Amino acid sequence: MKINTIKITPIAIPDVPLANTKGVHGSVFLRAIIELKTDTGLVGLGETYGAKRTLTGLQKVGPTLKGLDPHNLRDLRMRVEKALPDGGGVNAPTALADHKAVDVVYSAFEIACLDLRGKEAGRPLYDLLGGAVRKTIPFGGYLFYKFAKQDCRFGPDILGEVMSPDTLVAEAKQFVAAYGFKSLKLKGGVLEPDLEIETMLKLHEAFPGHGLRIDPMGAWTVPTAMRVIDALKDKLEYLEDPVRGMDAMAELSAQTAMPLATNLVVVEFEQIIEAVKKDAVQIILSDHHYWRGATGAIHLGEMCRAAGLGVSMHSNSHLGISLAAMCHVAAATPNLTYDCDTHYPWYDKEIIKGGRFSFQNGTLQVPESPGLGVELDHEAVAELHDLYNAALVKDRDDTDEMLKYVPDYVRQVPRW
Amino acid sequence: MKINTIKITPIAIPDVPLANTKGVHGSVFLRAIIELKTDTGLVGLGETYGAKRTLTGLQKVGPTLKGLDPHNLRDLRMRVEKALPDGGGVNAPTALADHKAVDVVYSAFEIACLDLRGKEAGRPLYDLLGGAVRKTIPFGGYLFYKFAKQDCRFGPDILGEVMSPDTLVAEAKQFVAAYGFKSLKLKGGVLEPDLEIETMLKLHEAFPGHGLRIDPMGAWTVPTAMRVIDALKDKLEYLEDPVRGMDAMAELSAQTAMPLATNLVVVEFEQIIEAVKKDAVQIILSDHHYWRGATGAIHLGEMCRAAGLGVSMHSNSHLGISLAAMCHVAAATPNLTYDCDTHYPWYDKEIIKGGRFSFQNGTLQVPESPGLGVELDHEAVAELHDLYNAALVKDRDDTDEMLKYVPDYVRQVPRW
Repeated sequence: MKINTIKITPIAIPDVPLANTKGVHGSVFLRAIIELKTDTGLVGLGETYGAKRTLTGLQKVGPTLKGLDPHNLRDLRMRVEKALPDGGGVNAPTALADHKAVDVVYSAFEIACLDLRGKEAGRPLYDLLGGAVRKTIPFGGYLFYKFAKQDCRFGPDILGEVMSPDTLVAEAKQFVAAYGFKSLKLKGGVLEPDLEIETMLKLHEAFPGHGLRIDPMGAWTVPTAMRVIDALKDKLEYLEDPVRGMDAMAELSAQTAMPLATNLVVVEFEQIIEAVKKDAVQIILSDHHYWRGATGAIHLGEMCRAAGLGVSMHSNSHLGISLAAMCHVAAATPNLTYDCDTHYPWYDKEIIKGGRFSFQNGTLQVPESPGLGVELDHEAVAELHDLYNAALVKDRDDTDEMLKYVPDYVRQVPRW
Repeated sequence: MKINTIKITPIAIPDVPLANTKGVHGSVFLRAIIELKTDTGLVGLGETYGAKRTLTGLQKVGPTLKGLDPHNLRDLRMRVEKALPDGGGVNAPTALADHKAVDVVYSAFEIACLDLRGKEAGRPLYDLLGGAVRKTIPFGGYLFYKFAKQDCRFGPDILGEVMSPDTLVAEAKQFVAAYGFKSLKLKGGVLEPDLEIETMLKLHEAFPGHGLRIDPMGAWTVPTAMRVIDALKDKLEYLEDPVRGMDAMAELSAQTAMPLATNLVVVEFEQIIEAVKKDAVQIILSDHHYWRGATGAIHLGEMCRAAGLGVSMHSNSHLGISLAAMCHVAAATPNLTYDCDTHYPWYDKEIIKGGRFSFQNGTLQVPESPGLGVELDHEAVAELHDLYNAALVKDRDDTDEMLKYVPDYVRQVPRW
């Protein structure tokens, strides 16, 4: 089995103005859909970020994969590194280190290779990762403060403005009623810390049995984080990226028993070692899109087990190919003991046959068909590719988008 | 594909009196051969230690594997842990922690499961480990001081007595001439340190281009190890387990630039974290027999990469199933940059069809047939199983054996 055709399709999906520390989501979000076809007639699928830097990387690497045996992930890695000697070649601003682009591009193709291997072997992808410890995958409700949408050319708004504790609790109630989520995570760092504390306390009041988390993406100083912790102790599963940088996380960690989670200060295997030496974090967020694919995410789980760290799962705006892969990784990661994050309920489009995944009691069943267990709906992809061309948005810039809502907005981390 | 028959066959292989810090090898060494048969008619092979503690563990776990899907290594792990709640159940003395017996038993069955998966998929085992970065696997010559064999009932001696620097160099010359090894490792901790220094200096003189190592298995104090390092600096690739225990290794490591390797103080993933925190070692020896199988050995490689540690490969007395598995692991471990250890040349028996592996220029080609790429020679197994029954040796005790050669021998670590 060798790869002979590589297709990379950028698509745009109508988004809603979800707020975060950097700013706010734009009118669309971007994804890239990967199709790897083999000389044996199989097609392997992948889905990853579609912004300029990743897309350029994918397009540079794609043609070099002709002839690749999808079993040989070492060969894939070498081809990616060779094609991206400068780490991706687009010096777009990013939260991730330059060479992280190599991991992101590798990860996108790795999933497609695993999909091919599963299809060839007639096995669900989780069986290539050591087998499933669970087949029912619990997800949490991912709550955002948001503006009412101004630009509805590409898709409708949902829920209108959510910029207060009470409206956020109302959002949570809608999510829980619709999807049955048993845990809730708030993207914080948007309102004054006191308002976010109030939000969490009201969420706790409304959902006393739910696991709760808040992720201000480094928006707070250590003293502010300590103030939040004092107000919310015993009410959170963990606190995600409260402060910015490994050393600030370590400083905070030394002052509190609250478990600290991260998807910002530990995004590479080398950083796990640094984090352990500094006792900076207690939980690391897994994500097959940048932790060197699904096999990398499994390695992450093993390293966390060895280091005595917990594992949770990160989400970015995504559709069903990513969601299927997240299910397979979650199925095969024994110590992934927290409900997974997902942006999925915020969108209504899908690019896989059979339409959208449906949550039951906050969970999804891991697909059991060979590979990822999903097939591409080419018409749906074509429609979102047309939107990509029409929308003229080719990159993500939440800060720039924020100026449409808050004309004098200045990004600042930490802000409080 | 489900496992429906589990066969575990202990065998004894004629050994020669190779000396080490614990004592000396006995008249035979013991292995256990695993055969897992599936409802689809495939047979998966494994080979591991055959001494009492491991054999008992294998026999306890074996019957519980009926119905196991060989893809589900998580299920295998749970079955092993359930069947060995006390960590193996035989409180035989061992250098490894009690729960290490669980890892050893798991590892033996894991390899057999991977063999099955490879056979089902029509793929060499390395393809289940992420693919091969190399297909020519370099091995080093594993040199031992040895006594002339007293008990030749079960098999002949080779090389006679080797208990001096000059005779050891003669041994090395025979090994290099016969197998083409490009590196040489001495099992040290047997003679006075000055004699072992002299041996290494004479090896360096005889083989100036060869990579050299010495492994006294913790026989030295830190000052003695420093004396050896001063005498041999720039002449060794690394020094393996010169002193006993993590803290002594860390104390030594702080005093020298000589890379320290280990297969004694770091034998579990958790210990990698401790070793990194203490900067106790620079190289870890991989071994699929106890690092949670071949997939565990691959995880070890990833962790070492992340931690900035080197990887080498450990050997115990073994036959061809183990050797095949070692080749597959070495093929799929990118950062295994040292020649692998192997005891293989010390024995002349084999249990696989086609007879013994043949080294060319110190290397082996990784088998390319599905799975491990080897088939069992049932007649050869039966013959060595008969020897197991006849030899009446059911455990390994190098110290007890030593009394046959040195009647007043007392085991002591460190000795010098």
